[in-house]
Formats: sequence, C-alpha cells, structure tokens
Amino acid sequence: MSRNFLNDQTIDKLHDKCAVCGVYGVEEAAKLVYLCLFALQHRGQEGSGIASYDGKNIIFDKGQGLVNEIFKTENLERLKGTLAIGHNRYSTIGESHLKNVQPIVADINLGQIALSHNGNLVNGYELKRELVEKGAIFTSTADSEVLIHLMAHEGGKRHPLKEAIINAIGQLRGAFTIVLMTKDELIGIRDVYGFRPLVLGSLKNGFVLASETVALDLIDAKFIREISPGELIIIGKNGIESIFPFEREEPKFCVFEYIYFARPDSFIFNNFVYDVRKLFGKKLAYQDEVEADIVIPVPDSGIIAALGYAEASGIPMEMGIIRNHYIGRTFIEPTNAIRHFGVKLKLNAIKSIIKDKSIIVVDDSIVRGTTSRKIVKMLKNTGAKKVHMRISSPPVMFPCLYGIDTPNRKELIAATHSIEEIRKYLGADTLEYLKLENLFSCVNSKQFCEACFTGKYPIL
Amino acid sequence: MSRNFLNDQTIDKLHDKCAVCGVYGVEEAAKLVYLCLFALQHRGQEGSGIASYDGKNIIFDKGQGLVNEIFKTENLERLKGTLAIGHNRYSTIGESHLKNVQPIVADINLGQIALSHNGNLVNGYELKRELVEKGAIFTSTADSEVLIHLMAHEGGKRHPLKEAIINAIGQLRGAFTIVLMTKDELIGIRDVYGFRPLVLGSLKNGFVLASETVALDLIDAKFIREISPGELIIIGKNGIESIFPFEREEPKFCVFEYIYFARPDSFIFNNFVYDVRKLFGKKLAYQDEVEADIVIPVPDSGIIAALGYAEASGIPMEMGIIRNHYIGRTFIEPTNAIRHFGVKLKLNAIKSIIKDKSIIVVDDSIVRGTTSRKIVKMLKNTGAKKVHMRISSPPVMFPCLYGIDTPNRKELIAATHSIEEIRKYLGADTLEYLKLENLFSCVNSKQFCEACFTGKYPIL
Amino acid sequence: MSRNFLNDQTIDKLHDKCAVCGVYGVEEAAKLVYLCLFALQHRGQEGSGIASYDGKNIIFDKGQGLVNEIFKTENLERLKGTLAIGHNRYSTIGESHLKNVQPIVADINLGQIALSHNGNLVNGYELKRELVEKGAIFTSTADSEVLIHLMAHEGGKRHPLKEAIINAIGQLRGAFTIVLMTKDELIGIRDVYGFRPLVLGSLKNGFVLASETVALDLIDAKFIREISPGELIIIGKNGIESIFPFEREEPKFCVFEYIYFARPDSFIFNNFVYDVRKLFGKKLAYQDEVEADIVIPVPDSGIIAALGYAEASGIPMEMGIIRNHYIGRTFIEPTNAIRHFGVKLKLNAIKSIIKDKSIIVVDDSIVRGTTSRKIVKMLKNTGAKKVHMRISSPPVMFPCLYGIDTPNRKELIAATHSIEEIRKYLGADTLEYLKLENLFSCVNSKQFCEACFTGKYPIL
Amino acid sequence: MSRNFLNDQTIDKLHDKCAVCGVYGVEEAAKLVYLCLFALQHRGQEGSGIASYDGKNIIFDKGQGLVNEIFKTENLERLKGTLAIGHNRYSTIGESHLKNVQPIVADINLGQIALSHNGNLVNGYELKRELVEKGAIFTSTADSEVLIHLMAHEGGKRHPLKEAIINAIGQLRGAFTIVLMTKDELIGIRDVYGFRPLVLGSLKNGFVLASETVALDLIDAKFIREISPGELIIIGKNGIESIFPFEREEPKFCVFEYIYFARPDSFIFNNFVYDVRKLFGKKLAYQDEVEADIVIPVPDSGIIAALGYAEASGIPMEMGIIRNHYIGRTFIEPTNAIRHFGVKLKLNAIKSIIKDKSIIVVDDSIVRGTTSRKIVKMLKNTGAKKVHMRISSPPVMFPCLYGIDTPNRKELIAATHSIEEIRKYLGADTLEYLKLENLFSCVNSKQFCEACFTGKYPIL
Repeated sequence: MSRNFLNDQTIDKLHDKCAVCGVYGVEEAAKLVYLCLFALQHRGQEGSGIASYDGKNIIFDKGQGLVNEIFKTENLERLKGTLAIGHNRYSTIGESHLKNVQPIVADINLGQIALSHNGNLVNGYELKRELVEKGAIFTSTADSEVLIHLMAHEGGKRHPLKEAIINAIGQLRGAFTIVLMTKDELIGIRDVYGFRPLVLGSLKNGFVLASETVALDLIDAKFIREISPGELIIIGKNGIESIFPFEREEPKFCVFEYIYFARPDSFIFNNFVYDVRKLFGKKLAYQDEVEADIVIPVPDSGIIAALGYAEASGIPMEMGIIRNHYIGRTFIEPTNAIRHFGVKLKLNAIKSIIKDKSIIVVDDSIVRGTTSRKIVKMLKNTGAKKVHMRISSPPVMFPCLYGIDTPNRKELIAATHSIEEIRKYLGADTLEYLKLENLFSCVNSKQFCEACFTGKYPIL
Repeated sequence: MSRNFLNDQTIDKLHDKCAVCGVYGVEEAAKLVYLCLFALQHRGQEGSGIASYDGKNIIFDKGQGLVNEIFKTENLERLKGTLAIGHNRYSTIGESHLKNVQPIVADINLGQIALSHNGNLVNGYELKRELVEKGAIFTSTADSEVLIHLMAHEGGKRHPLKEAIINAIGQLRGAFTIVLMTKDELIGIRDVYGFRPLVLGSLKNGFVLASETVALDLIDAKFIREISPGELIIIGKNGIESIFPFEREEPKFCVFEYIYFARPDSFIFNNFVYDVRKLFGKKLAYQDEVEADIVIPVPDSGIIAALGYAEASGIPMEMGIIRNHYIGRTFIEPTNAIRHFGVKLKLNAIKSIIKDKSIIVVDDSIVRGTTSRKIVKMLKNTGAKKVHMRISSPPVMFPCLYGIDTPNRKELIAATHSIEEIRKYLGADTLEYLKLENLFSCVNSKQFCEACFTGKYPIL
Repeated sequence: MSRNFLNDQTIDKLHDKCAVCGVYGVEEAAKLVYLCLFALQHRGQEGSGIASYDGKNIIFDKGQGLVNEIFKTENLERLKGTLAIGHNRYSTIGESHLKNVQPIVADINLGQIALSHNGNLVNGYELKRELVEKGAIFTSTADSEVLIHLMAHEGGKRHPLKEAIINAIGQLRGAFTIVLMTKDELIGIRDVYGFRPLVLGSLKNGFVLASETVALDLIDAKFIREISPGELIIIGKNGIESIFPFEREEPKFCVFEYIYFARPDSFIFNNFVYDVRKLFGKKLAYQDEVEADIVIPVPDSGIIAALGYAEASGIPMEMGIIRNHYIGRTFIEPTNAIRHFGVKLKLNAIKSIIKDKSIIVVDDSIVRGTTSRKIVKMLKNTGAKKVHMRISSPPVMFPCLYGIDTPNRKELIAATHSIEEIRKYLGADTLEYLKLENLFSCVNSKQFCEACFTGKYPIL
Repeated sequence: MSRNFLNDQTIDKLHDKCAVCGVYGVEEAAKLVYLCLFALQHRGQEGSGIASYDGKNIIFDKGQGLVNEIFKTENLERLKGTLAIGHNRYSTIGESHLKNVQPIVADINLGQIALSHNGNLVNGYELKRELVEKGAIFTSTADSEVLIHLMAHEGGKRHPLKEAIINAIGQLRGAFTIVLMTKDELIGIRDVYGFRPLVLGSLKNGFVLASETVALDLIDAKFIREISPGELIIIGKNGIESIFPFEREEPKFCVFEYIYFARPDSFIFNNFVYDVRKLFGKKLAYQDEVEADIVIPVPDSGIIAALGYAEASGIPMEMGIIRNHYIGRTFIEPTNAIRHFGVKLKLNAIKSIIKDKSIIVVDDSIVRGTTSRKIVKMLKNTGAKKVHMRISSPPVMFPCLYGIDTPNRKELIAATHSIEEIRKYLGADTLEYLKLENLFSCVNSKQFCEACFTGKYPIL
C-alpha cells in the first residue's frame, strides 16, 4: 500500500499555511519570484503559483507539488515582465486542490489584479456569506477571494484603488499578510497585529516583498526593513508609498515562527530566528537540572534549540538521530508493517551514540505526540538508558485561528492530558516543556500572540 | 522543430467550441459523464472537466488534453455521487488555458452550482462590463462566468433558483446550450434559436442530457427527445419539469452541425446527421455534370457526402486518400521541410487509384483553402489527370457569432475571392460548391441559420 | 475499473509484430526515421526505438507508447548523424516491456551495431540454447539478440562483417526482415521466403529502407524497388551492393499483409494493397448471391473489401457503423457494465441506415469471433432485419509461426468450429468466408504462404 | 536557462558510484529491496532498478531518478516473490543513461541471473575486449556485463554455478561488491581488498545483503556481520554457505566511506561511521591551534567532524550555514546571474552568527575547490572577520580507480596546487587538512586504501 508520508499524521508538526512574495521593477521578475518561492518552500509544499504582468495582461501559472517541479523554463519564459507575485501553499489533505492554489487573478472594476495571502480571516465565512447574499460568486474556498470581492465592491466608480483596498481591508478581522499586484503597482499589506511576517528588500532599481528574509538572500536583494503591522505599502513608478490607514494595536507576532516555522537564517520580528530559537534551548536548560550523558536534537526541527541546551547545560551535543532528506511525497509500505515505519523513513538512531546513555532529546514542540512517542521508542530500542524529553516551547493547548494549520483541540495532546500523562504516553523518563514565562523572557512578551498556549485570542 | 499539428492552421476546418452533458439519478454518474465526454470528443479536444455532487459538496476535476488522458481511475473514484455534469473544450491557441476549462463551479446565494456552456454570447462582453462595474470579479474569460454572475445577481433573497435562472437567461443574447447542476437538480437550457443541439435520454431511473445522441448510445441510455429551443428543463426528485419562459422565435439551428461538426451517427435537429450529410452529397452531384472516373472523399470529413455523390452520379467511389489516425498533438519536422508536411502526416494518396484518372474529390467545406490546395497538389503529384473539387456546403463567407471558431473574415477565402479565383488557388480543374438553395432543400430551410454563408445574422 | 481496451481481447485481430526502417546519407537521419516510424505506426504500438551514429558512437533512445509520445524534440536532437534505423513494436501483454523494444545496440567484435527485426525465427529458441551453452548471455527475449550473437560468433578474427552476416543469417530458419546499421553502413536483409515486406527508396543523396512504401511517401522518398527474398543489401559510401548469398526458394509472402496488416496505400509484394484488398471483396461478392439492401463495412478494417463487394454485387455501400478514432490505451468502465462496452467505445451503429434493412457486413477476418459477435448483436439491437456476415479471407485455423501474433489454436474459433457453428455463435443469419481458391486467384498463389488457413507451413 | 544543479560541478564532492542490496526468503522481497534502496539513496541518485523472481522468471523494473519517483505501487506489485535484488546508480552526465541502470538480468547457461555491482574493475576494458573477440556482445558499458559474460563463459557444461562464479571472479582485478541472484539463491561477493562495504542481516526466516547497515535498520533486519573481503556467500534453501576461494590479501577499505560517503548512522568496516568521522574532527582540532569564536560545519557533510572539532578545541559550534533540503534536480537561473547562485540554492549564511566573528569552517574534503571558494566568499560577504578552513581529510591528489567518481587529476586542486596556493584560491585566512598520519591513527591504517591521497594504488 502506498501512503503519503509527507502528510502523514505520524510526522505531527504545526504548519504555516503559506508563503507570499512579489518583485517590482526588475527584468525577469517571475524568475526572481520563482527563486523566492524556492527559498520559502518550507512554508508550503502543496502547490505554488506565479502571476506576472506581461505588458498586456496579468497572466499566471500554477500547479501542485514543489516549486521546482511545477515551473519549467517554458513556464517562466511565458511569465514575462518586470512585475510579478507568487505564493506557496501548505498541504491540506482531501480537498480539491488546484482551485485553491494562489495567486488569485481576477478582472474587477479596478482592472486586473492578482493577490497572494498568508493568514486566516476570523470573519471570512461571515464576509463571504454577506457577499454571496449580495450576488457575489465564489469559485474557491480561499479567504483571498473574499478580499478581492470586497475590493471590487468598494472599487469602481465608488473609489480608486487605494481607497478601495483600505475600505476592503478595514472590514477584515484576522491575520493577513497580503502581496497584491495591479498592472503597475506592487502592494504589501500586513494586518494591525502583524501575526505573519513580511519583509521588504531592494534589488537594483527594483523592490522585493517576501515572507522571510531568506528569499532576499537567495536573489541578492538587500534587506531594507520589515513591513510594519497595519502598514499598507504601494510600490509604483513614483517609488514607495507607505501609509497606516488603520487604528494601531499592540502587535501580536506569532511566536511559533520563532519556535518552528521560519527558517533559522531568517530575520523577522526584529530578530534572527536562529538567535531566539537557540535562546529557547538555553532557557529550557536553565529550567531544571537533569543528569545525562548527551543532548541530542530531533533533526532538523530541534537542532538549534539543542545547541542552546547543550551550551547552557554543559552536556555535549551529539547528532544521535540521523535524518534521511531524500523523503518524497508517498511511500509504499510492505503489507507486514515495519515498526515505526513512518518515523524510520525519516529518522534513524545511532547505536554507538545512544546505547547505555542517558539522553536529553530536544524537539521544538509536541502536537499530537504520536511522532515523539515513536522517537522515544526508537531510542529505547536502540539501548538508551534514560530518555529525557525536552520541548523548547510550552504545551500547545489551543488551535490557532490566524493561519497555522492546527488539529482540533481534542487531537492536541496537551489540551486533554497533563504533562505527566503525556510523559507516560511518550514513554519518556522525564518530560519538560519550556515554561511560558521563560519563552516570553526571550522576546518582547507584549508583542507576541500566546493563544495556542493560553487560549487568549487577541481577536475573535 | 516541433509543431502543433492538431492545431495547425494547415488543417483548416471550422470547429465547434464545446460539448456539454449531465447525468442524474444513477450510481457512478461521473463515470457515465466521462463516457459521454469521450463519445463527444470530436466537439472539443483542448480540455475536459467533470463536476459531481458527492453528498456534501460539488467537487470537480479538470485538465488539458483528451478525455481519457485527463481522467484516471482515481480521479473518477473521487467524483462520487449520482449527479454529475461535464464539458469538453475546443482548443484555441496561445491562451492561459486551464482557467477556461469548464464546468465552472461556484458558491452563490442559490447554493453551490456547476455549469457547462456550449455557444457564444453576443452581449457577453457588455454584460461582463456591467457586472464588473457593479463589483463582480471575474477569474476566467468564459461566457459561462457571466451567466453565473447573472444568476447570483438575480438570486438569493430576490428569487429562488428557477426564477433566478429565468431572469438571468432573459438577459443573454446569443447562442447557449447550458447544462447546469445544483446539489439536487440537473438543469438543461437551450436558447430560443436552438443554435446548438441538446438531447435528453433516460437511463434506469435516471436521465442524461448531452450535446448529441452518440453520448446516449455509448452508455446504453434511451433517447427520449431533443430539448426544444427556448426550453428550460429541470430534472429533480419530482421528475422532469419543462418550461418555456421566453418568447418563442423561429429556430435557427446550425446547419454546420449537419455539414461537419456532429458525428454522422448522431440524431439532432430531428434527423440523423448521416442522412442529411449524404443528401448534401447527392444534391451536389445533381447540381452539375462532370465526366470523371472516380469519386474520392477527403477522409473522414468528406466520406458520407462522397457516398451520396457517388450514388447520385453513378460514378464509383474509391478511398483514394488514406488517413493516418495515429496523429497526435505535436510533430517534429525536419529542418529541410518535406513537401506538404502538415497534410501528409494525416493523408496519403494511392497511386494505383489516382494515376491517370479524372477524379471528383468531395470535401465538406473550405475555410482558408490551404489544406484543400495541398490535397489537390498531392493528387496531381500522384498522377491525377483531372481534379474536380466538390464541396458539400456553400462558400463560407462570414464568421460565426454563435459558438463556432471561425477565422477573421479576411482569412475566409470565399469572403475575398470568387469561386473561379478559389479554383485557381487550389489548382483544381473545376470547383463546385453546393448551392445554398440546394442545401436548404435538404432540410427545413426556415429553421436554420445561414449567417456564415449570407451574413444574415439572426441576432446581433 | 480501468481496462486496457487497445489490447482488449474483444477487439480481436491478428497483429503484425513490428515495423523496421533505416535512413542513410541524409542530414537529420533520426528525424526521418521518426517520421517513417510514424507512417508505420499501424504495424506496432507498444514501443519504438531509434538508433543513430553520432560521429563517435551508435546511440539510441527508446520508449513505450506511440511514436509521437516517445520522441520529443530534445530526444531527436541528441540522435545526430546521417545514418539511423528504427523499430516499432507490437504490444503483447504482461511482459517486462522495455527490454524488448528495439533496435538492439551492441558492441561486438565487428564494432558497434544496431539491429531492427520484423518476423519470427522458427529455430530461435534452439539457437539461443546453443549460444547460451557456449557462454552467450541474453538480456532480452527478442530473436534479434540471437542474430547479434550469431554475428558476433562468426565475426571478429574469423570473418569481416559481410561474411559474418552471411554465416549468421545462414543459420536462421524462419521469417526475418532485418534492418541493421554499423557506423558507416545501412544493411537490409530479407529471408529467402520473403514473408515480411521491405522496400527501398532514395532521398536526395541518401537511401531509405522501410517495411512499407507509406514510410517513403511521408518523407518524400522515391520508391526504387522491393528488397527481394533472400537479398542482402549493403548501402555504404560506395553505393549499394546487392547479393543473394543463400539458396533461392519459391517466395512465401504473407497474404495477411494484403488482407489486413499493411496500409491500403502501400505497395508491397508487387501490388498496391488497396487493389488486392478490393479484389478480395469482389471475389467474395461473386462467391454467392445474397439478397440485401446494403453493404456495410466494419470500419476501418473492412472498408476496402466492402467497396469491392458493393461494386461487384451492385448493392449500395453505406457507412452504417461509425468508428470513434479518439480511443486511447485504457478506459474506465462503470461497475454496472454497459452492454458491448469494448466494442461500443470504438463502434456505433446508425439506426436510420440499419433499421429494417437486410445487411451485408464485410470484415477482413475472424480470429476469436468475440468482436464479430458483438457487432452482429449491435446491428440486431439497432433493428437490422438480417445480418449477413461476409469475411474477405478464409477461416484462420492455424497459428502463424512467422511473426504474426496469433492466439493459441484452441482460441481460433475456426480451428474448432464449423462455419455453421461459427455463424450460430455470431448470431448472423448467414456467414460466408472468402474461399482459399478465390483468395489465391487474386494473387500469384504459388508465392504466398497459406499456413494460417491450411496448416501447410513452408518451414518448420 | 535551466541548469542541472544536482550534477553541477560547483557542488564538487567525490561520489560513490552505487548501492547494492538483496533480500532472500521473505514475502514481498521487492518491497523490502525498495526500502533498502531508499535508505541507500545517498550512494546513487541517477537511477535504480529491482529484479525479483516471480516463480517463473526473473523480472525487473528500472528507471531514472530517485527511488520513490521510479517505483509506484503497481511496479512493486508486479515484482512478486521472496527473492529480489536492487541497485542505485550514481549520476554521471551526458551518457545514454537507461542502458546502464542495474541490475542486469540475463539468460545464461547457468539459468537466469540478475546482478548488481558496486565498484570498478581495473581490467574491465581488457576483459571486455577479450570477450568481444571471442564473440561476446555487449549492450551496456557497465562492468557488470563483463562479469556476467565471464560467468557464462565459465558456466554451462564446464562448471556449475559456484565454480563458474569463482572462476569468473578469479579473473577480475579491481573493486567489486556484488549482489547476485539466481532463481533460488542470493549471492554476495566482495573482492579480496574489500574496498566497498557489504553487510549481512537477518529478517524473520530471511536474509538481507546491503551496502550499509542503514538499509537493515529501516526494514527491521537484524545486523549479523559484514561480508569479509574475498568472501563468497551463498544464501539458499539450505541456509548460508560461506567460502573464501581466493588468496587472501590485506584489506584495503575505502577510507572515504568514513570521510564522506557512508551515512553516519551506518556500521561498516567494524566501526560506526559517526564515531570515526567525529574522531577525524577531533584529530583535526588537535593538529594545530587557532583562535576563533566559533566552529561552523558546512552542512550536511561537515557536521559530524565539526562536532568533534568543537569538542576537542573547546570552541562552541554554531549552525552558521543553513542548508535548503528542497533542492531538486534542475533549477532555472535568471539571465543576470546571481552571485554564487549554485551554492546559494543550497546554503545560506546567518549574519548574526557570522558577522565580526573569527570562524573555523569544517568540511569533509576539497575536490576542485570551487564550492569551498564560494562558501568562503559567502562568509566574508556576511561579515566574517576571519575564515579558517579546516578539512577533515588529507588533500585528494589522485583519482580513484575503485569505484569513486573522481575528476581528472588536473581538476583535483590539490594535485596541482600547494596548500598555500589552495588557501589563496579559496580566500581563506588559514587552511588546514587533516594529516594522513592523523587520519590513519583513527583507524587500522594497514587495512585502508590511501591511493587518493598518496597515489599508492593497491592494484593496477
């Protein structure tokens, strides 16, 4: 039987729903967008799309799979022009996929526009219902389509583009980082809480917007600054216009970008992810003392925190679990199932490191606990004397409403089990999560959302 | 160099733009729709789509290419349910294709609907402009999207489904044969002129709508009747409701369905295509007398008319030109071009039949004349003494506005050249078209559109 | 369930096993070979291969499927050079396919060679066993590999190329039409009985070898002559050398090439296939008298014979059965099977032609009878008053040993049933086969193999 | 322009040419082989093949690309049986690929056999020439075909299987690790020097042979032992037979398996690769003293050695370079090239770690130096104060003759440049290689091949 292990629940992580980017004012803009999407592949592997203005129309191409599987030379050659935007989409199972791959390209009363969206609208369903009642038609289930409808509703004779956008955005509640293009402008928008990141870079005479700075790095773009929460930035032939049309709020950055989503080499929310992530590991080490021979990370998610943990604890780090990076989308499993098959396709423990050792295993988070449990078993089978599980984030107890793909509350193991119960389920000798106060001692606590840990949702 | 010969202008024929079909009330409705689309493949080879109601949602799948290239077992298994519709699309070059493949599936205030459309709206652009001004967004360039917008605009609180459809349809001017589905109804609509065909069949406890009866034949459905011009038929759990909400007009059936488009084994516009097509051939033979040794058809388009011609003239028919049916989408041509390459990939003349013979070549129509010219040359090169070209339709002088893909007027050879000039261009010894009065003596002349021959457009 | 209908037993025909061709002395030889293979597609649809000498090595490319699916521009660009050969392979089910696709390219003591083979060795297994005992290794199951081994065994220090070939060929018993290339010569060989055809054409300064003349037609090559039975032709920089190194025999051409395999527009065995095939139809008409309204062919195999039948009998021919040419490799069948599904995907009967008529149905042959039976049922269901089945060849009672894919004797309906029993099985009102003496009155009877009708195998 | 970056010379590493494996005595043997090949994917990414005995024949399937791209459920279902072998092939550019993908399956006088080979024959060309002179035919350029020919030559009436193998093997000079199957036996062979690894595992009632133990780990096989240099092991229904038919030699294991090729979690040559690789890093640290702020590995190849270096030197390790693991086969590069494009697709430096720091960069080896140079530049551009390059192996000065893909001597930077010249070329502040004596102090020096460092080839 063939199974989809990329999406397998056994590899249980939270997942960011998307990456967005746009390039303005440079030849072969679509090729640069393509490279940005490649650099942002970790934010979405279901499908990708690129739209560009070819001098006559906004045209686009999109497909399912990884960026470099979807786009071939001939696709990119067709996407001519100096203005383009792109989107990576995170994989969700069992839906009619292609219709939801962005950017959405539409003809509206403001002309042709294309739009990429990262985040989740809290009032998306409500807005859609109202629009549908007024006679709107929806051909996808993406929040992005709601936004285009709102813009169309506000636009035309009523308002020119900027006002239409502002009026449309003003009706949205939730998390949205948007990259939008008309035939001659590249526009970036971040909601007033700034849940999801968006950065600005410069490139020769042009500009780049992207979810993370790693996209700038790959295409030799110079990092200028992050787009601010509540900022609307319009890049056109008169340069950059930046406005803040909405009432300011205290930011609510997503702390999980630091914990897991963002690439460690990205700079977002005013810090390098690497530095914050390593600090989480250190704080975790200071939290309690445990006697152990070695610290090992769950690769790759736990590596940076494990480095911090090892440094703070003085216990040496070893790469006791090796990851196979050739893993593809689906795998064929023999009928007589192999123990811990899903985990073993990705991870393997090294006997000479593990055997007879007391081990501190560092991972970034536990969602359902199924994978962590298999890892603990694998280590015990490999001869570990003790397995001390250390998690560089607090227990995830509440689903995210702002663009992170979280399972139902009842599937979140920490929502229904005490830490001691989780420890037993995992089969670990000890289990310790990073305490919320310690997490927030590493960053400006007021500026981060804590909803997934405490249920304090900043917006409902 | 690789060239697309399926779309090559050298194979110059008029082309119907689409096929539509729908199945109600039978298990595996999507698989039956798939077979209908296969039977209707001659009406569109660019791409196909199928939508079905799976008990929760209307889902769909679509792709580019031939029906049996697009749909695999796993696609059809996913399209569960007892209600489904489908669409084949004719190939046009150079567009961003996939977005225009139908059915269009949308959430509107009347619920989820899916729609397949065959035809062309005369006021499509005008309606779209008005809708966009009112705030509508368009994600494709298909007329079908206009229709869904109109329905949404009329629907919701204003009107229930039936009234919304009637009000929406009432605003359309042009040719439209529509198959539409909601979650529990299959709906067929034909414009008051009835340009394009639509037939109704029964199947166990279910029903089928399709562009031609050949689709019914393949799936063992019983032919009930044609949907009438101006008829709106709603198939639901209370059976079939038929209404005629629009002012009646004299029908304007498309006579080119008889001349070329429809399969000869289809029954449409109250006749078997085969019978009418053969009659055209007979009338053509009666029109003038020519001394010749044999009648040969241009395969496959000219075969039925040639049979009629041979029968009426008493001159024996031979299959002097053989067609290669393995032709695919693209072909690689050697740099040193081969004479008449595009034609020869499809057609080859047989020396022992052709050499030293006076030949009557029968084809259904001439559009640009490029292919006919190559055929005449091929026959002359093969040793034909005389080539008498006989065309079983009048000269095509005006573009169609009702859903047939015709070139610009200036590319229609008969629009700018006399018959004698065309004969010279083709290199034929004589050339004779079926006269309009003879064409219309074969069918009820009042009920057919003659716009492409005379420019008398029934609706503008 | 998805089924392979191209290979479906319901479409029961005998099949030729291969096409061969080669081009010498022209730029882009591989592209011309590609076109030849396309023209010869009817002789094999499983897979195709092309080998060319690129100035350093004989390189090749091959794949499964149709010629224009396998070879893209980039494949053919790589196959540089002025000398190339090709091969189409007929589909057999359930084997590990790719290894048997030809040409076979090998390094032997005579240098690099590539070889394409059409036919079947009677002593292939025996030769292979001997070679294996001597230490040869076989990586395919193709007879062609036997031949290369024999050449290698005879070649090297022992003999130069020509003698090695002659000595190798001298050991073969059976049917073989071979096209072979070294780095500088194109070689054609036909067994002394000449079972399978091979023709020679010229092209600018170059030459072409191909199974049928239709390949020459497509690439504008001039037909020179057929390669004779027992002839070895070597085309090199000194021109053409023709030798007859083997004892002459009375030819045993395969009459089924005329009955069904070869394209009607080909000239082989000194005649145009069309002429002979039509004559078969005439002879069949003269054989007995039957009262009927119309003659209809089973398309496309029966068309030419039906033309002859209609002409000789004076009964008009109608295309009462229409063939769908879009048929692909596999089809998905609904769970509740449709009557005569396999046949109906390809064929449909026209009611207005068939209903209440006495019909003479002409087909070229009956193998298992399963398809013919479904055709008769379809005609009866469509309202035929009488169905008179007429077959333009004698009953096939014995399997072919010379390169035609025939089922086991027990599956050949005529091997185990009388004509009357077959008639009953088919459900036809009358059934008549072309008598052997009438078949052979159309051709030089002494020069044709009759084994499949009489079991008189010319070589065992 | 699209470029193949997987094969790009800019990512210059030595590469192992292959992985081999086999499974005996377990249901679904081919599926287990498939998993073994996946675990061994790092040893070859060009193509893979699997052969199995299905009860009647040895059948096989193979293709180009990664294991889980090539084999789908339907392929593996077809490869029935309890005995199967497999092969991964390393990518070499510009060859007609598919013909060289193994296993080779052949019918010989010993029956059907299939063979996978890892290594390189020193006398392969010579043996081939002799065989060709004797009349052998070669259809690939793989050494494996030579071996099958030798077996066939020795086999048949002359000798039964075992003797034929022994006699054949006896003629080989070079490196060969072979997994071979007949219809009822699985056979493993390792040359007397044991250049390439081969391990034995048990599985229920069955056995497994594989290049590395990671393959056993994935399928839950128990590691029994390594096959010894010069050992011939025959696994059949009477259990395991082990013989040493050849004169013993001092082993010459390939030390590069420890340095780079083998996965760190494998146990080969009597050690865990991880342990030895880390020891190399420690020894490198002890070799000289350098003042630096941090140690960073070039991921992933330098990670384990960097851990050792950091531990021995007391300088903290940071993951200052991040690797993108989504890299695919080809990438499209904008016309205006991006600086260090090839490297940046894979690697990115983190400013907050690198800036203003003195950095020790640890990598496993330098081949051409092109990639190392780009890494140094990237670090300097990111603000590194000093870059101290440390290589955990001696300079590679001589090409490998035993199965490692090395460039020509003139392309090996250390063959033509002094270490100081290399340092300058790289732009590093200091450069230090692990000294040969230090390398060999970590392992049993007598048992390892040092040819690539010293040119002392154990066999020529």
